[in-house]
Formats: sequence, C-alpha cells, structure tokens
Amino acid sequence: MTNKQTMAMTALIGLDWGTSNVRGFRYDDGGRVIESRRCDAGLKHVATDAWEATFAARFGDWTQESPAAAVLMCGMVGSKQGWSEAPYVECPASCDALADHLHAIPGGLKWIVPGVSYLNPDGCPDVMRGEETQLAGLEPVGSFVVCLPGTHTKWGQLVDGRIESFQTTMTGELFDVLMKHSLLGRMAEPGDFNEDAFSRGLDRACGSSFLLHDLFSVRTLRLFDQIKSTSVAAYLSGLLVGHEVAGVIDTIAADAAVIIVGTPELSRRYRTALMRWSRPSTVCNGETAAERGLWRIASRARLV
Amino acid sequence: MTNKQTMAMTALIGLDWGTSNVRGFRYDDGGRVIESRRCDAGLKHVATDAWEATFAARFGDWTQESPAAAVLMCGMVGSKQGWSEAPYVECPASCDALADHLHAIPGGLKWIVPGVSYLNPDGCPDVMRGEETQLAGLEPVGSFVVCLPGTHTKWGQLVDGRIESFQTTMTGELFDVLMKHSLLGRMAEPGDFNEDAFSRGLDRACGSSFLLHDLFSVRTLRLFDQIKSTSVAAYLSGLLVGHEVAGVIDTIAADAAVIIVGTPELSRRYRTALMRWSRPSTVCNGETAAERGLWRIASRARLV
Repeated sequence: MTNKQTMAMTALIGLDWGTSNVRGFRYDDGGRVIESRRCDAGLKHVATDAWEATFAARFGDWTQESPAAAVLMCGMVGSKQGWSEAPYVECPASCDALADHLHAIPGGLKWIVPGVSYLNPDGCPDVMRGEETQLAGLEPVGSFVVCLPGTHTKWGQLVDGRIESFQTTMTGELFDVLMKHSLLGRMAEPGDFNEDAFSRGLDRACGSSFLLHDLFSVRTLRLFDQIKSTSVAAYLSGLLVGHEVAGVIDTIAADAAVIIVGTPELSRRYRTALMRWSRPSTVCNGETAAERGLWRIASRARLV
Repeated sequence: MTNKQTMAMTALIGLDWGTSNVRGFRYDDGGRVIESRRCDAGLKHVATDAWEATFAARFGDWTQESPAAAVLMCGMVGSKQGWSEAPYVECPASCDALADHLHAIPGGLKWIVPGVSYLNPDGCPDVMRGEETQLAGLEPVGSFVVCLPGTHTKWGQLVDGRIESFQTTMTGELFDVLMKHSLLGRMAEPGDFNEDAFSRGLDRACGSSFLLHDLFSVRTLRLFDQIKSTSVAAYLSGLLVGHEVAGVIDTIAADAAVIIVGTPELSRRYRTALMRWSRPSTVCNGETAAERGLWRIASRARLV
C-alpha cells in the first residue's frame, strides 16, 4: 500500500511494529500522511540482532530522503524480544505520560513509545504495547469504554484520553489455536462467514457461563449435523466473542459510550455481540488510530 | 504390559479402543484377566480400511488360541471414523441397555458397545464413547456424581449404575493445544509438576468467572517473573481444572458422593480441585474400570 507524494518534506516517520506486521507512515510537518507502507517484517520474523538491518531494508529510503526526520515506533518492537526494551508506564496513563517516557534507541533520532501496565485489584498485572498509541489517536473528551479486538483483545476505561485501567483476553489466540490444532478445527471447512452461525454461538454464550463445556457443542452440533462444516468457524467465533463480552459486561454501564478500535471485520463482530447486551458502540479503524496516535505523541514529545 | 498364563482358557477378549491407544484384556470364564496388553494403534493411527488387519496384527494370537471366544470392544472404534459405527443409546442408559444394543461387526463374534448420548435441556446434544463402559465397571448402588478426566472430560450423574445425564468439557484438549501451539506454551520449560503453581491456578479460578481473561495471567505473571517457566504448565492446569470445577459445582450437592475415574495423576488434580469447593471424592483407576465394564456388559449380553 503506497501513496507517495515525493515533493513533500518528511517531518516524522511513524511505525506501528507488531508481532506479525509493520505499518509505516511518513508525515509532513502538518501531520498529514504523505506515504504509508505495510510489510510482514513483524517481531516474529526478525532475528534478535537484525532490527537495525530490517529497518534499513524496509524504511531506509525514507530516512535517506529525510535524514533529520525523527522515527517514532510503537508495539512489540519495544518488548523484551524487540529492538530495545521500553519500560512500561503505569495506569493511569495519559498521552503526555507516554510522550514523557519515550525510550530512545542509541544512535539518535529513534524512539519507542512505552507500553502501558495495569495492576489488577487481585494483584495480577496486565500489559499492552501498541494499543496505547491507538488510544492516543482517538483524542476523546469524556469517559469511554474502549475495546481493541485482536489476538489479545484489550478492554479499557478511558477518561479524557487517560487509560485508567484495562484487561486483556486471549479470545483471538484461542480461536486461532482451536481452529488450527484442535478437533474442532478438523471438522471445519472454509466458507463465507456465516452470520447465522455466529449469532447461534452468541446465543449460546448469552445463556451460559461455562465456556469449557460450550466448546464441546461445536463438536456435537456438527456430529448431529446441526451446523455445517463451513459454519464451524463462525459458530466458534460467536461462542468465544459472546463469552468474552459476557465476561466484561459488568464493567460497562448501560449508558456507557463504547468505542471499538480494530479492523472492520472484527469490529463488526464485537459490535454485534455488544448489541446482544444492549450496548451500542462506535467503531474506529485501528490503523487510522495508530497513525493519528504516533503523530500526536510525537507532537507532545516535541519530536515534530 | 503382559501377564500371561497360557494354561487358562480364554472366555472373552475385551478391547478399550480409543483415539490414541488400545488396551486389550483376555479373560478366563470366571472374568479374571489372564493377560493384558496395551499398544498405540488408536483410531488416529488406523487407516479407514485397516481395522481388521490392525486387529489381527495386534490381537490375532489371542483369537487363534481361542477361536470361540467373543470379542467385545468399546470406545472410538464404534465412531463414524472407527471400525463400524455403533449408534448411540440415549440417557438414561443402564448397563442392560448397553448390553441390549451391542453393535455386531459382520463376520461374527465381534461386538462394539454403543456410545451414550444425552440431550441437554438447551437442545444441545452430548456424547461419550468408552466412558459408558468404565461406568459400567463401577457397579455402584445409589446416586453418584462421576468425573472422568481426560482430553474431553465427562461429568455425569449415575443412579444405581444408570447414566442419567452428563456433560463434556474440552479442558484436556485446551490444555494440550495451548501448551503446544500458543504463546503460553512458548513461555514454558519442562519441569517437575509444581503443586504450588497448580494451587495458584486454582486460587485464581476460584475468585473469577472469566477464563478468557485469566488465561492471559499466565503470560503476565511470567513476564513479571511471578511464576517460573517450569511452573507454567502446572499453573495453566490449575487455572483450567479450577474453571472446569467451578462450572460444574452447582450440579454437585454438598453431600454428593463423587467418584473420579481416570489416571492416578489426573485424578489427583481433580480431587484437589474439588476439595477447594469442599467436595470430597473417591478415586477409581480408569483402566481397571474399563476392564471390569467390558466383562460386565459381556455377561449381561450373554457373550460369556
């Protein structure tokens, strides 16, 4: 994905560098994106000592064109397995707190946005890396519940842009491993996403608090031909997303403003699930949020 | 495992033929096991048309020695993917009902014990194959709650030996796929089973009804060095078994007699988990139960 206007001056290079992919943005001095680029050089594809070389190979043309431009990165690039470990900022975490704690990579002009940690009342910590930058891109005023669906979905409380608290669920990863490696996945065949099967999974989750048992219904409904093999994925998705929403619903007031930040497809599923519990929501594109967040944090940190 | 007394006459050959393994028993006319044998020729290792040949290769010496002995099999051998599909018997299912519905394999002298199905009040079916034979081996008089831990754990209500109802949980398979294929497993290193970590997982499950969130605690506790890499498996096991017991506990009266039928190691974990909810239990060896059950069903069906 490239949208290049070579005439404009680059003021900032922003990278959302996650586990699977990297999305890069080149901004002019007004914060407009003059070029964007996506590649699959995510953390899991980068050898421990190959970060600098990977950056040079994928984004070196941008820095050569504009050697004075700052580079701001967020996501797993700042984890222990990443380029350089950026310590967590604790909740409540504002955009200013993130900007005040940028982690500089030796060599100059490159910074990493810190992840955010939250200590649950039960003593168990929770963490995010990358989502804090998407949230910084929302610039909301007021109180919001935010949902960032993905491999490890985050549910957070946002007050005037500050992340007050959050919790993570393993829903996305669980769906993936069950589809790829369990008996349930072996009964599935590819097909268009079946809305009815997704709804049926939601229905079951609504009436149950026993996920470990409900998972087996994927097998038995298939065994008795009550769902099609092409609907297994959608039913399982409904079951898992439904159980997830059931698990967080007590933390969402009936009149809460809920914002979903993610890909259009996943966001739509969460929106549907939330409506089962009569919680309307607004959807924001996650990539746009990251692009805005990187610029906003860079501005607050006076990198631009 | 062989314990051979070639002098004794074989009255019955019994096979517990599951997904991974087969356990075979040769009985004399008093129901005593005169030889037993275990091999890895489970359903997943047998090609569709290789059942007869596999049987001949693994147990042909027994039938040659005693050509008039009946062969009674239970487990996944009777599934759609097995040797020959044995229709389910519906709950309530007594030992006599199983004996009355043995499925004959063409060619003579070979029968398969039917699986048992149960229609949950919510309309979703549940199934077992093999466990009904273990339960037939218990010969209990009175009302019991039975737990058969495994890849797909079964929890049942047994009244005077009749299976009144049951439900399945995916706990064992979920543990396996998470350890082998998820981020959680990648943080684990092998080590002795750590009782404290198992307890800690149980503790967390006791205070929570949100498994999808609790799974992520495996990652964060490890990230903040609050559990060792060698304890990841035990903590995850405690978390899953704890959530499972929490899910069934409402169906277990405070004064219920609970019997756990399984391997010694798994049974011990479930016994510990049940004690968290003040439910004492008795443990029966699952292999012994299958051995007794096959003989008992064969007797009721007048195969011996």
